[in-house]
Amino acid sequence: MIGSCIVDLQARLFRVPLDEVLSDAKHGDHTHFELVTVTIAQADGTVGTGYTYTGGFGGRAIAAMINHDLRPMLLGRDATPVEEIYEAMQWAVHYVARGGIASFAISAIDIALWDLRGRVQALPLWQMAGGAGSTAQAYRGGIDLNFPLERLLENVRGYLAEGYEAVKIKVGRPNLREDVTRAEAVRALLGPDRKFMVDANYALDIPQAIAAARAFQPLDLLWFEEPIIPDDYAGYARIADETGMPLAMGENLHTIHEFEYALAQSKLSYLQPDASNCGGITGWLAVAERCAAHEIPVCSHGMQELHVSLVASQANAGWIEVHSFPIDRYTLRPLVLEHSRAVAPDVPGTGVEFDWARLAPHAIF
Amino acid sequence: MIGSCIVDLQARLFRVPLDEVLSDAKHGDHTHFELVTVTIAQADGTVGTGYTYTGGFGGRAIAAMINHDLRPMLLGRDATPVEEIYEAMQWAVHYVARGGIASFAISAIDIALWDLRGRVQALPLWQMAGGAGSTAQAYRGGIDLNFPLERLLENVRGYLAEGYEAVKIKVGRPNLREDVTRAEAVRALLGPDRKFMVDANYALDIPQAIAAARAFQPLDLLWFEEPIIPDDYAGYARIADETGMPLAMGENLHTIHEFEYALAQSKLSYLQPDASNCGGITGWLAVAERCAAHEIPVCSHGMQELHVSLVASQANAGWIEVHSFPIDRYTLRPLVLEHSRAVAPDVPGTGVEFDWARLAPHAIF
Ligand SMILES: [Mg+2]
Ligand SMILES: [Mg+2]
Repeated sequence: MIGSCIVDLQARLFRVPLDEVLSDAKHGDHTHFELVTVTIAQADGTVGTGYTYTGGFGGRAIAAMINHDLRPMLLGRDATPVEEIYEAMQWAVHYVARGGIASFAISAIDIALWDLRGRVQALPLWQMAGGAGSTAQAYRGGIDLNFPLERLLENVRGYLAEGYEAVKIKVGRPNLREDVTRAEAVRALLGPDRKFMVDANYALDIPQAIAAARAFQPLDLLWFEEPIIPDDYAGYARIADETGMPLAMGENLHTIHEFEYALAQSKLSYLQPDASNCGGITGWLAVAERCAAHEIPVCSHGMQELHVSLVASQANAGWIEVHSFPIDRYTLRPLVLEHSRAVAPDVPGTGVEFDWARLAPHAIF
Repeated sequence: MIGSCIVDLQARLFRVPLDEVLSDAKHGDHTHFELVTVTIAQADGTVGTGYTYTGGFGGRAIAAMINHDLRPMLLGRDATPVEEIYEAMQWAVHYVARGGIASFAISAIDIALWDLRGRVQALPLWQMAGGAGSTAQAYRGGIDLNFPLERLLENVRGYLAEGYEAVKIKVGRPNLREDVTRAEAVRALLGPDRKFMVDANYALDIPQAIAAARAFQPLDLLWFEEPIIPDDYAGYARIADETGMPLAMGENLHTIHEFEYALAQSKLSYLQPDASNCGGITGWLAVAERCAAHEIPVCSHGMQELHVSLVASQANAGWIEVHSFPIDRYTLRPLVLEHSRAVAPDVPGTGVEFDWARLAPHAIF
């Protein structure tokens, strides 16, 4: 190895305020997001950057696992065999892991290792990850459950003005009638041709989800996201069977086993792995491979600045979600949209570079 | 509330050395265990103590989640409705949780809240948890995969000398013949009447596990523990169906959904939830209730000083594992064994009190 020997690895934590309070049905109000970054330096001076997100909880635990459990096992190791390191990390923390904080910690490190790999090989992520293409269908996802109707519509108008041709809103208000009224108004605003999705963040039980899916039927949804808890694989199939509604989930699945159960049992129309919490790029690609085998389009949740490269790279590409956390303010390359498709960065590595000076005021450490 | 208002909550981390290196098939060598303690003070001055363990990784992340994510939401809250607090904690960290570090963090706090509850109500844990009895069948579990045969037998002789009439050893050496030879020697030492279990710590795949179960058939095992990864619920059923071997697992299941899948699909003969990682006493009792519904004896993994009260309290009690981490040196009441059964503490609360002075040299913070 020599040049590719890992000589430094550091996690940092940032707590970044949102411009306004954002709400969904199950996580309640968001006032901040947490960004945990990892920089890995190898002996030849090349530095790779990885990261993960939270909705406001868990950032310290993620950083603690990176700095205290994973860092010691990685220092001095060859950075090249990323997939081997991924397996080694999974087994090292297995007893306290298999999902949860460990998935986020491993994701951040894995992304840094892929960034290093791309820099060393002078390849952009979309090429390393599959190379099927360099642009991805993109939709704008609002965290807007608390917005009054007029504010919701104004928000959607903003998305259209930005160039998006597909939009997702939150549902799961205390009464289904409200959700339907809001979704009808958004569909009327979008017109019949634009894509439209809704997301309940698992606020419903199965009977409620079935009722909602039936009520949403006239809206021609591309999908109904997370109607129920992600743990109930067969429950999703029941909703799909009873209503014919296309369903999507994945942002709350962390281990490959969870994804395999969802693919085998849940009758999903779309799967939405998130590289920030399912094991980074290595974990995401393992899920994408299984999506292809099941002939289900692979999508993504959040982290659009990175997922654009991953989704674009896949032959069975679905959609990237362009999330409401204002990450574009803190990177050197805001998301590029062309003809309503997101364009992958074409530089070596992940193409995600942070504006450390802009992040600095939000640093916890 | 007033008196029962939570006024302080603090996690501490201890890294406690083992006397010798202990090994199992999948986690490799253990040189330390980590103990994360939580003390919760309520306004009337009553203090409850909870805790969790790790095999050496993750302690800092657990403590970080307790001190930074869960503490702020609990300060000022009424300590009385423990089950409500349990639910609130699960939902607060849901996005970074559902198993993993969060399960350990929530477990430690939940145990502290039950300790408080017992102190306030002047009830011992075995009574609060069910009251079916105050003693439990106990077996001694070795972490002994790396011991040469003579050392293994010497170890088992030690367990018998301590009064145990049931013993478990590790299996999963590179070659099945070695495992069989070792297990035969232990069975010969135990004689035909004592209970004997083996534990592979999921080192095997299904065909290997089936071969091993067949090879172990003449040994009259009470159970074969974790032959394969805990995530493969149907794989367990296949091994049970093809060999008739009684199977056990549970120490690596964290969420109630995982336990429900295992109970519904895995054809287990024993389930082994661990209150230190499945949501504390609240989480453990939820699993015990489902074990009763499935008519499967509820056992435990590690943490014998606390599990003795939980297993003893259940009508469908199985066995407690008396684990190899030397926790007895750091508590005020070493485990009490009478006629090879473990006796639950009969004092208010959990009955687990740490010897803080003896722990002090091992404090990280
Ligand atoms: Mg969503
Ligand atoms: Mg075990």
